[in-house]
Amino acid sequence: MSELHLKSRLAKESTRILANMSSAKKREALLKMADGLEQSHGVILKANKKDMEENPELSKALQDRLLLTPERINSMAKGIREVASLEDPVGREIYMTKRPNGLKIRKVQVPIGVIGMIYEARPNVTADAAALCLMSGNAVVLRGGKEANNSNIAIANVLRAALAQSDLPEDALQIIEDTDRAIVAEMIRLREYIDLVIPRGGAGLIKFVTEHATVPVIETGVGNCHVYVDKSADLEMAKQIIINGKCQRPGVCNAIEKILIHEAVAAEFLPVIYKELKERGVLVKGCPYARQFVPDLEPADALDWETEYLDLIVAIRVIESLDDALMHIARYSTMHSEAIVTNDYFAAKRFTEEVDAAAVYVNASTRFTDGGEFGLGAEIGISTQKMHARGPMGINELTTVKYVVEGEGQIR
Amino acid sequence: MSELHLKSRLAKESTRILANMSSAKKREALLKMADGLEQSHGVILKANKKDMEENPELSKALQDRLLLTPERINSMAKGIREVASLEDPVGREIYMTKRPNGLKIRKVQVPIGVIGMIYEARPNVTADAAALCLMSGNAVVLRGGKEANNSNIAIANVLRAALAQSDLPEDALQIIEDTDRAIVAEMIRLREYIDLVIPRGGAGLIKFVTEHATVPVIETGVGNCHVYVDKSADLEMAKQIIINGKCQRPGVCNAIEKILIHEAVAAEFLPVIYKELKERGVLVKGCPYARQFVPDLEPADALDWETEYLDLIVAIRVIESLDDALMHIARYSTMHSEAIVTNDYFAAKRFTEEVDAAAVYVNASTRFTDGGEFGLGAEIGISTQKMHARGPMGINELTTVKYVVEGEGQIR
Repeated sequence: MSELHLKSRLAKESTRILANMSSAKKREALLKMADGLEQSHGVILKANKKDMEENPELSKALQDRLLLTPERINSMAKGIREVASLEDPVGREIYMTKRPNGLKIRKVQVPIGVIGMIYEARPNVTADAAALCLMSGNAVVLRGGKEANNSNIAIANVLRAALAQSDLPEDALQIIEDTDRAIVAEMIRLREYIDLVIPRGGAGLIKFVTEHATVPVIETGVGNCHVYVDKSADLEMAKQIIINGKCQRPGVCNAIEKILIHEAVAAEFLPVIYKELKERGVLVKGCPYARQFVPDLEPADALDWETEYLDLIVAIRVIESLDDALMHIARYSTMHSEAIVTNDYFAAKRFTEEVDAAAVYVNASTRFTDGGEFGLGAEIGISTQKMHARGPMGINELTTVKYVVEGEGQIR
Repeated sequence: MSELHLKSRLAKESTRILANMSSAKKREALLKMADGLEQSHGVILKANKKDMEENPELSKALQDRLLLTPERINSMAKGIREVASLEDPVGREIYMTKRPNGLKIRKVQVPIGVIGMIYEARPNVTADAAALCLMSGNAVVLRGGKEANNSNIAIANVLRAALAQSDLPEDALQIIEDTDRAIVAEMIRLREYIDLVIPRGGAGLIKFVTEHATVPVIETGVGNCHVYVDKSADLEMAKQIIINGKCQRPGVCNAIEKILIHEAVAAEFLPVIYKELKERGVLVKGCPYARQFVPDLEPADALDWETEYLDLIVAIRVIESLDDALMHIARYSTMHSEAIVTNDYFAAKRFTEEVDAAAVYVNASTRFTDGGEFGLGAEIGISTQKMHARGPMGINELTTVKYVVEGEGQIR
């Protein structure tokens, strides 16, 4: 039996115990996990050093994502303690009805079972995912990126030891050590043991998983996010929202990638925003109409409108109406986060009603699409699909339901 | 452009109008649909007659499923009126928070978009699915079974006419007339236009769709349902529940397929239930232990335990403990409906907590797993998976959510 099959089976077998574990016991284990991380700087940093040394070819940005420091390890521990403070969703009754025939039907939240987590680069996902899955009563099979493998294994070992110390099944937390790419293809078809796969990473990974999985998948994170500057917009507000959305952290999924500007304000706003972005090192592209206002814009082509740059690049299109903005977004949106800046009640109403996305903003930065910022606690990812969960996914989204029907011999 | 692509695109284009349609307007259209069906007996029965004549090779049971009568058409109309009386889930706010930074975050229910419905045999699914999708603000692309094609087209045409009469987009209801099997394979990968596929039919269809779809799928209906007769069971109650679960309608997914009997009551109960089932024409199989109590049982083999008979067949296993029952169910259950008959509080508690299924019953027939019986109104299918929806799916389950975030210029 392969490592993947064995570990996934062990995870599955642990779910019966895990699903009915008391909240207090889960919290105790989570706090031990956090303590364990803080007490294991040495072994984790050593493993991380090995990862850094083995991957000198990584870009600066990726090296920074891979790097662990004492502060970053402590921040993982802090994240786990926050998860431990959340309300336990498992067992919560979300609906009850007593039918005319006397049947009592209760709909209760239960764990999903085994979550298969496939992720890239950042080793903190190992700790976040483990904590969220445990609190929601799920077992987890982790499959991190090859670059971070030593770090991930070191972190997972610390967390597994904490489970054992709390008399919880260690098997509930599995990490696949084999970095062969073929494992992913196998994992996403392992319906026998894995109930849900959550891929977290680039568009390539998400696409591969979506196209080849037979295990149910929650797609996450691809964000070709737009901000539409309406003709009635407060242009100073629009400027701040765009600078924040584009420049504060360009490599994340809720960063702004496209700017749509109503032609009525283009002459005033385009030169201003172009200057502000350029000063911050952003490569600014534009449609032919936009380039009439600012000839220095790089020309944007058809490919630009569908690209998630994840970089200091943005493309601007000048449009003639709210309808055009809605149509552009309907065509190119990845249904992550979309924003309008407007003072017009009806424009805001139509935008929020008609744009089909996980999060639709009026007069605020798309950067807020985040479990913490939404007040849901930590998140295991941001769903960009419509099934099961949409937007930031916390522990609530890691549960499913079960109908419990109690009778006294009712037949139909 | 193929029929499938064209119709799916038209459906997608209709969703923007449909998603924000008032409840009153949707109800009006549904009532017109119901009236239309009642006024169109002639054309529908004629189409159905053609289907019956073109498929003389169908089994009696399938012929009965295909057959339409004036009463059955009126009963479809009645079902549509019931859907029209349900509370509209679209636009309902299910969560609101005002964050410390002043952002107002609302989570509202919205339609999924375009539902692809792939179904077999019974033409009433055409009307049910159309009504449920319309009330929940979704467009629907219907792909019925080849045997019922004339009936399905006739019904769909009546319903589309009612949409047009109510000034709703006819395009929201599409029926694929081409019966080529290859269309299904294409449809389940048409991510551009279809947001969700719901297959309703035999295990073969469900398996094909699950394995080849890239569009998200909700699996429905395969039910290898067990009833466990505990040692503390009221045996008269157990008898009634088994007779009801097996014989009242053996061809449906919530019928009982397997009986587990605690050895302590096997000597008393097995001869009784065997006699009752045999009198009702049921072929009763048994494990070797069960055959020690009733040698006349047909031997059950390994394949039996995983088979959904959908027929007057049942297999009985005598087991030694509640743990054995839980293990048997964990291994063979299709996670549809599972029942225990018991007078023991702790046995009931463990069974409801540990069995992983859409519906878990204590002292009641599994036949109740049904949207109507659960008080949810009509259903579009019974989900046997854990993502998005589980158990009977009504209009609520045909929605997703959208976060609407309102600010005054907040940035991060």
